Amino acid sequence: MVSIGIDLGGTNIKIALVDKKKGFIATSSIPTRAELGKENIFDSLAEEVKDLIDTENVRPMGIGMGVPGMVGLDRRTVKNPPNLPGWDIVNVAKEMEKRVGISCIIENDANLAALGSARYGVASDIDSFIMVTLGTGVGGGIIFQNKIYKGTTGSAGELGHVIINYHGPMSHSNTRGGIEAYLGQRFLSRYAADIIRQHPKNALYKEFSTDFDLLEPVDLSRAANNGNKLAIDILQSSGEKLGYAIVNYIHILDIRKIVVSGGVAKAGKWLFEPARKTAHEYLMPPFREGFDIIYESLGNEAAMLGAASLAFEELS
Amino acid sequence: MVSIGIDLGGTNIKIALVDKKKGFIATSSIPTRAELGKENIFDSLAEEVKDLIDTENVRPMGIGMGVPGMVGLDRRTVKNPPNLPGWDIVNVAKEMEKRVGISCIIENDANLAALGSARYGVASDIDSFIMVTLGTGVGGGIIFQNKIYKGTTGSAGELGHVIINYHGPMSHSNTRGGIEAYLGQRFLSRYAADIIRQHPKNALYKEFSTDFDLLEPVDLSRAANNGNKLAIDILQSSGEKLGYAIVNYIHILDIRKIVVSGGVAKAGKWLFEPARKTAHEYLMPPFREGFDIIYESLGNEAAMLGAASLAFEELS
Repeated sequence: MVSIGIDLGGTNIKIALVDKKKGFIATSSIPTRAELGKENIFDSLAEEVKDLIDTENVRPMGIGMGVPGMVGLDRRTVKNPPNLPGWDIVNVAKEMEKRVGISCIIENDANLAALGSARYGVASDIDSFIMVTLGTGVGGGIIFQNKIYKGTTGSAGELGHVIINYHGPMSHSNTRGGIEAYLGQRFLSRYAADIIRQHPKNALYKEFSTDFDLLEPVDLSRAANNGNKLAIDILQSSGEKLGYAIVNYIHILDIRKIVVSGGVAKAGKWLFEPARKTAHEYLMPPFREGFDIIYESLGNEAAMLGAASLAFEELS
Repeated sequence: MVSIGIDLGGTNIKIALVDKKKGFIATSSIPTRAELGKENIFDSLAEEVKDLIDTENVRPMGIGMGVPGMVGLDRRTVKNPPNLPGWDIVNVAKEMEKRVGISCIIENDANLAALGSARYGVASDIDSFIMVTLGTGVGGGIIFQNKIYKGTTGSAGELGHVIINYHGPMSHSNTRGGIEAYLGQRFLSRYAADIIRQHPKNALYKEFSTDFDLLEPVDLSRAANNGNKLAIDILQSSGEKLGYAIVNYIHILDIRKIVVSGGVAKAGKWLFEPARKTAHEYLMPPFREGFDIIYESLGNEAAMLGAASLAFEELS
């Protein structure tokens, strides 16, 4: 069985033909060009999908698509995706079906990354887990008893906007002191730059003093791997924030496996060890049993694989 | 159809005969006397239940019981209830069945208070809601699609221990800055006493200066109702804390009706208005739709009614 998995991002659209058992058959990518409007996006995307089907000469049973916004319980409509200007309420499934002639189902991209991890990734033997994606923003997906938990309207799992300090920094949404405001790529970079500016003798100061805007989390990980104490401290402080947020997820949901992915998660142990230690310390003791933080390396592919999986499971 | 609903507390055990349609037929209460050990508790309780059945001359179809601890997914066993010393893992259902000869099912008391509100209380027309019980501790119950959400092991909904400020005060559990540490009865009383001590001209100072330990949240509500500005400020600050916690519950669960009960909740608007305002301010805009805080007046009866409901629904 073959389906199409699409990850519609603000910058690029990634498309995959996926075989249920074997995984990727072929992948493709086109620029989103959100500024040209949604009709243009759907036209270009439909074109690319049809090309991919023709080239590979397969008959996909459906299209699954991840979109960066809140998706209704009908899994056809997205509401005000922040990175797609001019979209208010759009029936994405209908637009694709009209153009490609194949049934389509959509879901929030972070939820699909979680489903991708559940079906093809590190969580494939875990029934219930919480996925935190540390990217530009911090997204979340909750898998409970092998299904995406969607809440009452389809918007559950805004894990980046769970407050751990109501005096904390503001994120791009209007929440204060959520982990997006600590661990979102730009927030972490800015926080790190602020600290490094105060340490002119540090190797990172020398590297970035001409333009601290170039500093990214990956530079912190690299420096930490080279033994840079300041970088280790910065990542530790950030990891602790993640730990507090994890306490909140677990105390509410009683789901104890935490799967972390995304660019910032590549910092690995420098982030995960302090997160684990902090969560363990502040979890009520019965919740410590079975608690674990696991790194998902699927990266950008997770949402495409999750999208394809959703098509397999809901459209067949 | 008639069942028995029991609320096993650290101080008293409340017992009710409940008719599915009409509600309470008869109620009774005995002291828990936890210090005499669990055999004594079960013996006294079974005696009282049998007396109640004989007096009312009914044939209950089952027993539902709320217990103050974590209840397994089998709904028969409780693990280390903090207010019942000497209980490690106890098969409560078996102990009752052995003594009374009627099928028994147990559940966490805060979960049953939520179920009671869903079946007999203010939430009877709400499919999914989050119940926060502001008592000595702060308990929680999550009703999702008309059922108790139990998570992976049965311990979901520890809403009093969701961190809103990782620098905040410690609660009796080892969590820091959860709302129990702000709104739990003793925490709120102590916080209020600390502030009132600094205001010798305030009417509450005069009332309690001989022994601030006597101050309770109900005194704050009374003073607030009389226009005492300091009492209003204290309750406002506490209500704001509740508001931050509500943001966390909603961003994770996408369940937007919050039902609040318990002694401290009697402060009513002095607590609820600031909670509502704060939550509204920090919720991501799409989550504001349908958001509401509702007071549940069932009080102590909620858990008994929830226990009886659980018996109706799971044992018949």
